[in-house]
Parts: sequence; C-alpha cells; structure tokens
Amino acid sequence: MEQGLGYGQIDTEKVRQFCEALFGAYGFLEDDGRIISDVLLVADLYGIESHGIQRLVRYDEEILSGQVDVKARLDIVHETPVSACIEANKMMGQLSGVQAMKLAVDKAKTSGCGMVTVRNSNHYGIARYYTEIAAAHDFIGISTTNTEAICVPTFGAQAMTGTNALALAMPAEPFIFSYDASTTVVPRGTLEVFRKNSTPLPDNWALDQNGSPCNDAATVIDSIIAKTGGGIAPLGGLGTIHGGHKGYGLSVIVDIFSAVISGGLTSNHVNRKPGHTGICHYFMAIDYGIFGDKKAIKTNMSKFLQEIRESKKAEDHDRIYTHGEKEFELMAKRKNGKIPVNEKTLEEMKMIADKLGVDYNL
Amino acid sequence: MEQGLGYGQIDTEKVRQFCEALFGAYGFLEDDGRIISDVLLVADLYGIESHGIQRLVRYDEEILSGQVDVKARLDIVHETPVSACIEANKMMGQLSGVQAMKLAVDKAKTSGCGMVTVRNSNHYGIARYYTEIAAAHDFIGISTTNTEAICVPTFGAQAMTGTNALALAMPAEPFIFSYDASTTVVPRGTLEVFRKNSTPLPDNWALDQNGSPCNDAATVIDSIIAKTGGGIAPLGGLGTIHGGHKGYGLSVIVDIFSAVISGGLTSNHVNRKPGHTGICHYFMAIDYGIFGDKKAIKTNMSKFLQEIRESKKAEDHDRIYTHGEKEFELMAKRKNGKIPVNEKTLEEMKMIADKLGVDYNL
Repeated sequence: MEQGLGYGQIDTEKVRQFCEALFGAYGFLEDDGRIISDVLLVADLYGIESHGIQRLVRYDEEILSGQVDVKARLDIVHETPVSACIEANKMMGQLSGVQAMKLAVDKAKTSGCGMVTVRNSNHYGIARYYTEIAAAHDFIGISTTNTEAICVPTFGAQAMTGTNALALAMPAEPFIFSYDASTTVVPRGTLEVFRKNSTPLPDNWALDQNGSPCNDAATVIDSIIAKTGGGIAPLGGLGTIHGGHKGYGLSVIVDIFSAVISGGLTSNHVNRKPGHTGICHYFMAIDYGIFGDKKAIKTNMSKFLQEIRESKKAEDHDRIYTHGEKEFELMAKRKNGKIPVNEKTLEEMKMIADKLGVDYNL
Repeated sequence: MEQGLGYGQIDTEKVRQFCEALFGAYGFLEDDGRIISDVLLVADLYGIESHGIQRLVRYDEEILSGQVDVKARLDIVHETPVSACIEANKMMGQLSGVQAMKLAVDKAKTSGCGMVTVRNSNHYGIARYYTEIAAAHDFIGISTTNTEAICVPTFGAQAMTGTNALALAMPAEPFIFSYDASTTVVPRGTLEVFRKNSTPLPDNWALDQNGSPCNDAATVIDSIIAKTGGGIAPLGGLGTIHGGHKGYGLSVIVDIFSAVISGGLTSNHVNRKPGHTGICHYFMAIDYGIFGDKKAIKTNMSKFLQEIRESKKAEDHDRIYTHGEKEFELMAKRKNGKIPVNEKTLEEMKMIADKLGVDYNL
C-alpha cells in the first residue's frame, strides 16, 4: 500500500497524543481515548494501514452520526464461570473488545477458559489486538467479528456474510503465533486499491450483481454499497473448484460465534438501521495449562513453528514466515520512531482537528 | 466419484453386518466394531466415499501392521472440569474419537463446555461424525484432526501440515449446520482421482518437489509419498494472491489444537515411525445455553441459515446450500436402502474376508 509517493513519516508519539486529544474532544474518558488510540497505532506499527489511523475519518462519521455512543457502558446480560454475553449498547468496538477479552482472561484464570460474545458493538479494528492480550497472559486467544455483508455464499449473487475476521494467538518462543485474517478471499480495502489504480481484479475474487464473475473493482464496490447484489468471494474463491464453499462455511462460523450466540445481528442485517451498526464480536481465552505442562506445550509449539520456518523453500523464495512474524519485525523497527502516513489521511486528520478545535501539529 | 460404471448397489444393513464381523475377526470388542462400522457407513450414506468402506483396505493394513492396537485403552493424562488430555495408545481413531467427544459432552453438561485433546491415535474417518454427537445433545461441536504432512506452507517446497480437517456442528431447524472440510485446497483423494483419469490438475492446487506449481497429479503424489518435497496448496491456493497464507495458518491452528496442546506429534512428524502413526485430534462441546436462552439462539441460527438459502442465486444456479444439507438429503434417500460401492472396493472386501475367514455375502 505504501507506494513511495504520498506518504509522510510522522513521529509515532505525536500521532498518539493527537489521537488521544481527538477522542477526548469527542467526549471519551481519558483511559478510553488511550485504548482506542493504541488499537489504531498498533495497526500502523504492524503495517496494517487499512485498520490504522486512516480509519479516523470513518470513526469521526460514526461517532458524530450516533452509530457510536461515546457514553455507552456494557451490560452483561448472561454469565457463567466460563462465559458471558455482553450488550455493548453501541460502544466503540475497541472499548467493548478490550473489556470483553479482559473478562475472558479473568474467567480463564479461574475456570481454565472464558468465552465472551458481544452484540451491538461497532468496528473494533484489528482482531489480533485482542487475541494478543490473551497471549500476553500466556493464554491462547481467539477472536472473531462480523461486519456489514460483503461476502457472497457459494452459488449466490448477494452478500450475506461479512469480511468476518478470525484471529488466534498462541504463545511461543521467540515470538507468538498470531493469525488474523478475513474469511473472504480479500478484504474490501484491497478492492478499493484496485479501483484507485484502475487495475482489473484477478479472476476468482468477486461477483457482479447477477452473481457472475467480475474483474471490475468499481462495479463490485458500487453494487455492494447499493446492496443490489454482488460482492467478494469467500476464501477459496468462486464456486467450489478451489474450495470456495469452505471459506463460505468459515464466514458463517464467524457469524455463529459473534452474532448468533450473542442474540445480535448477523452480517446480512448489520448496518441497515440508521444510527446503528449492530456489529458483533466473540472473544475466547484458554489457559493451555488445562491440557498439560505449559512449559512442555510451549516448547512443542516453538519447535513446530521453527521447523516450518526452516523447511525447504520454493525456488524463488528464501523465507517462510509464521503468522505474526512480519508484523512483529516491522513494529520493532517502527517503535519509538516514525510511521508512514498517507497525505490524504493527514488532510483528513487536519480537517477533523479543525472541526473539533484540537491542535494539529503533525 | 460415482461415474455410472464400476459401482454396485449394496444393501446397507448387509454391509454393516459384514463390517462388524470383520472388526470382530480383528479382535475388537463387539461394541467397538459397531462404532467403527457406523462411522464408515455414515460416510457412505452421506456420499463421502473417500472416508467410507473404501478405507477398509487401508485400515486392514494399519491393524495388521500394528499401527493400530486392537486392545488399546485410553489414558487420561491431564484433566480439569473443562478439559482433558488423552493418550490414545494407538487406538483406532473412531474409538478414541467417540470416547473423547463423549467426555467433552459430559464436561459441557456440568461446566458449560468441554475440550478434549487426543494424542497417539489413528485416522478417525469423517470429522463431522464427532461434532454431530455434540449437536445431538443440543450442543455446538468442534473437532480437528491432523494427518501425515501433505500441505506446503506459503513460499515453501515441503509439506509441513496435514489435510488437517476442521469440523463444526451447530443445532438449527429444520436441520443442523454441519461444516467439515480440510484446510488444504483439496484433499489427497481428489488428486488420486485426477491421476486415475490422467486429467491435468487445475492451476493453484499443487507443487512439485522444488516448490514450483505443478499440474501433474502423479508427480505430486509420488513426491508426497517419497517425502522428497512438494504437496498440496493450502485453502486459498499457491502464494498469497488468493489468500493461501490464510489456509496455511488455519492448517497450523488445527495442529495446535490436535497435536501441540496434547503433547503429540505435529503433522510433519506423523507416520514417520514404523508401527506408529501418531495422529492427534481435538474435540470440543459447548452448551450454547451459557450465552443466553437456547430457544432464542437456535431460532436466530435457523433464521440466518434460511435467509442464506433463500438469498439471490447466481445466474446459472437455482440453489444455495448450507453446510451439511446435501449430505443429510442423500442420507435420507439411502437410509434403509442401498449404498453404491465401487467394484474395486468390493474385491478388496472379499480379499480381506477370505484372509480373516469371514463370510462374504454382499
């Protein structure tokens, strides 16, 4: 995404202070503003620009339009020693997410595992932010989230499930395994890059409103927005030849844990009501010591990952990554330093700052 | 797979009696023979021929070579109210699988959820057999299993993870959601069909021993067997353009739950020792009532699946299936009737029967 031109290198701590001031101006508590800012900054430090501060303009719209309730507090509507169902009351997703995963971690500490499902929340940023909270407690962390429908089921012509990310983190040495991926072949942001560059989409990625394969990003995005049909293929692509029915099933599974068991809105109903997104999440923490000696299990995990990294490479490649590795390397480089920010994002940030009366000095 | 010629229609109950007699002759207890036969028959009734009685010849080899211990009993090596780690002592996978899922269900009854990981087992047939045991108790069921390595990590040239199936069943009306799929783009059996028919493989399915794309099924299968490199692509295909790195991560996740937390062998070590496969499984049962009113949740689930089935179809399709649906329809047709059995399979069954002194009257 960072293609040389159009990016400024901005001091990370300055951006953090700016974001915190911004969220303070919206009316969030200081601690809450700190959390939301951190989720965004971690995405940028990991190089996941799509989920970093370039989202500020979208959050601004959601906060000011009332989709997000700045004063929302969570209600635990059902609870057992291993589980909870949370009504988020239109809370910012980062805030409901951190609280829900902390509750899952607390339950894992006393019961060995904790599962928390959350309804009526909002976009929560990168799913791995939450699973890595569990990993920091030396637990396995799992999280899923639904989104507005964008993924077309196999043999269908209409998006019924969302980008529907699935994330899992598992402690290991010298660094954790951290998987975080949509259950679609690509997320919507990737289509937007193809549209911007007027590049045809690869085959097997997307469908037009009649459910026919489509290589034109603009056509697909327009029909998704207009909800006239069409959308992105599930992981595995169109039809069944490359396993598209598997990705379709995984996206349904994400909706089961996020929306069905929480009593919330499944992806095909998300974002249909004004002032309400209805996005739902799921969080799980597992103390893997409930299966045996933690040290031995972690050693087994570290060895397996190392064997994969050291296995034979394809002819034109010199490295096999395990999940999370690339982002941890990038973060180590960027931490205490600078992050690249798109000029358009900087403009948007200035515009928001002016509107809210916050100092802009980036 | 059933291409007209070469299939006989055989009475299901006769096949069942024959299988039970066969497993009795190997020395299994009567109840155990009944369970193994049922797992095989259900696969054939579902139309999943690859995991049905055509496997008898392979099981025969594994039992007689000592990879399977007919007299094996399970040891629970670690246990909590929500978990257990089981040493299967080379037990037949169907037997360790059914016992492990029953233990997970018992734990879910008292604790809300149960997670059971199993090491040193053997091939367990269709993963959904076990998740559907949980669903029959009105619980969510999850199961994973590793296998001999067959799946090449992104940018690699050597298989490091297995077919690594992931299955999930969730109660719904008028029938449950039952997902069961490998985390590879296709399972090995599909490559064998292409080799038999001398048909080139679709692009993006497989790699030769140098990690280069390969369309020749025989080359791929031979190098997998010889362990000289090469193998099948993860779900999402080769490289990253269609999300192959996502399928690769999912296959690692299956090994985490099956092998890493059980202290067993990860796929890349499975089947390397004579007389020992080392295959590992994972089972989970969740009483979804720990999140809220079960009736309301099941209604939410049934409605979501119905909305998907009723959503707009692609131009050349008139039906969208939810997972499990096709197989339930086929089973309803075949139950109390006949199943198609390949002539080669019938020959193998006769050969095994003769060897063991069991009556062959199919």
